[in-house]
Amino acid sequence: MSYLTVGTVAFDDIETPFGRAEKVIGGAGLYSAIAGSYFTDQVNLVSIIGGDWPKEELKYLNDKNINTDGIEVVQDGKSFFWAGKYHDDMNGRDTLATELNVLADFDPDLPDSYKDSKYILLGNLTPEVQSKVLNQINPGSKLIVLDTMNFWMDVALDGLLEVIKRIDVLTINDEEARQLSGEFSLVKAAEKILTMGPKYLIIKKGEHGALLFGEDQIFFAPALPIAEVKDPTGAGDCFAGGFVGYIAKSGDISFENMKRAVIHGSAMASFCVEDFSIARIKELSSFDIQERLKSFVRLSQFDI
Amino acid sequence: MSYLTVGTVAFDDIETPFGRAEKVIGGAGLYSAIAGSYFTDQVNLVSIIGGDWPKEELKYLNDKNINTDGIEVVQDGKSFFWAGKYHDDMNGRDTLATELNVLADFDPDLPDSYKDSKYILLGNLTPEVQSKVLNQINPGSKLIVLDTMNFWMDVALDGLLEVIKRIDVLTINDEEARQLSGEFSLVKAAEKILTMGPKYLIIKKGEHGALLFGEDQIFFAPALPIAEVKDPTGAGDCFAGGFVGYIAKSGDISFENMKRAVIHGSAMASFCVEDFSIARIKELSSFDIQERLKSFVRLSQFDI
Repeated sequence: MSYLTVGTVAFDDIETPFGRAEKVIGGAGLYSAIAGSYFTDQVNLVSIIGGDWPKEELKYLNDKNINTDGIEVVQDGKSFFWAGKYHDDMNGRDTLATELNVLADFDPDLPDSYKDSKYILLGNLTPEVQSKVLNQINPGSKLIVLDTMNFWMDVALDGLLEVIKRIDVLTINDEEARQLSGEFSLVKAAEKILTMGPKYLIIKKGEHGALLFGEDQIFFAPALPIAEVKDPTGAGDCFAGGFVGYIAKSGDISFENMKRAVIHGSAMASFCVEDFSIARIKELSSFDIQERLKSFVRLSQFDI
Repeated sequence: MSYLTVGTVAFDDIETPFGRAEKVIGGAGLYSAIAGSYFTDQVNLVSIIGGDWPKEELKYLNDKNINTDGIEVVQDGKSFFWAGKYHDDMNGRDTLATELNVLADFDPDLPDSYKDSKYILLGNLTPEVQSKVLNQINPGSKLIVLDTMNFWMDVALDGLLEVIKRIDVLTINDEEARQLSGEFSLVKAAEKILTMGPKYLIIKKGEHGALLFGEDQIFFAPALPIAEVKDPTGAGDCFAGGFVGYIAKSGDISFENMKRAVIHGSAMASFCVEDFSIARIKELSSFDIQERLKSFVRLSQFDI
């Protein structure tokens, strides 16, 4: 079934203890579309780019059945740009530059063919843009997932609270869950956030895995221990894209299936961090993905 | 089968965001003996206390089939004392006071009845004391587990490296694994540490769970999300005690069984943090433990 994702398609400068990559392609929309494309055969990507974004990469996306009709191209504009440097522990990072460029005027106008999308991922953008996308989706969608970050809690909390009333699944990290709820305990934070609108909450903990909270249910998915994490950029977006893409494929929004979806998302994130930009996730085989899923089974399954 | 544990039996002053407890009983030996006693019917505890340590608590330990013959009582001495204050996030803590008291002269002399113990937990003490205990164990032990901390890596690294050559399982936290190996990646850290002697490494990550590394195998056990963590003191010792106690009961040191043991240890740790001192773990029923184990199954099991 059709999976729509909205998010940045951009350039990144990235420095990690393992090296640096300059002006590589990135962005939440890009990562989440590619990750989802391995599971569902129709991905509708909504974004905005400048004339500087490489056309051959749009062609690559189309070859992966990612519809790019919803990417607005501002020929005389520059694409969103982010530069960051990761700390030695790879968990923290400093933002060295953020240039909004064309993103500053992003006012998404969905192609008609996108409006019946059933599985929606509202990537980390202003709550206003997330609402605008949602307003254009025809009734009958099956699952709406929203990703956000502490920045929007700081500067646009009212708008954020409005849009999260309309969604099914919220994905944030542990610190953001604490900030949004005012509760330190993640269990209490989840209880509170689940009264704000979403039926499910996913708390992303990076190298420490992810927690899925539903009403009276908790599931934990570990992150796969990786010998060499080269670049964590995009891991959360790959997680979200894999999660929604898998649900779109299976058409099943039960808690049991969401557990599987969380594992599929975690698998996509584990590939993502193994190289810079989209290098590792660009061409994965079905075998690669099945083997990776088996690694998650071996990592976490036991009998009592 | 008989499980021997050596570690402190002490007093603690504890302050957490949820309250404070003054001069409560604690210590790694105490926690690990009690946690293990729920699985194996013979626990041999090695420690040292002053005349100030409450006699009725020794009676309580004996009632749980914990042999206290190996606890040296220095009637005119004072028991080891630790005071600490936990940060708001409960992960970090400041040590406010450490009074070695009788521990300063601890020279363990094992009762003969202890020397045939088959499953050994060398709790976090000086490597010299850990070696002295090991020297008194008769040949034929099945599993030797050693717990240590960064302090001994700083001040007694040579002694520590000597004793860990002689053990089967090392338990440390993630920062300590990095310090001991000089590797940031936990996968690489584990590879290196497994060349130092131990066949297995357990990396404890507190609220983020625990990793078990064996040759070419990794298992991850989540920590149970707890609504109200009152006091993390002793959680790592309960983990280790539950781990070794379960293996002592089952007599099976396969990797598959170690996975189960890690879950049993995690279950004991999850009880421990729910109240101050040993309040929560003091009287657990078999039903309590079975239900808790089921929570771990629900938390982490999925099918692909």
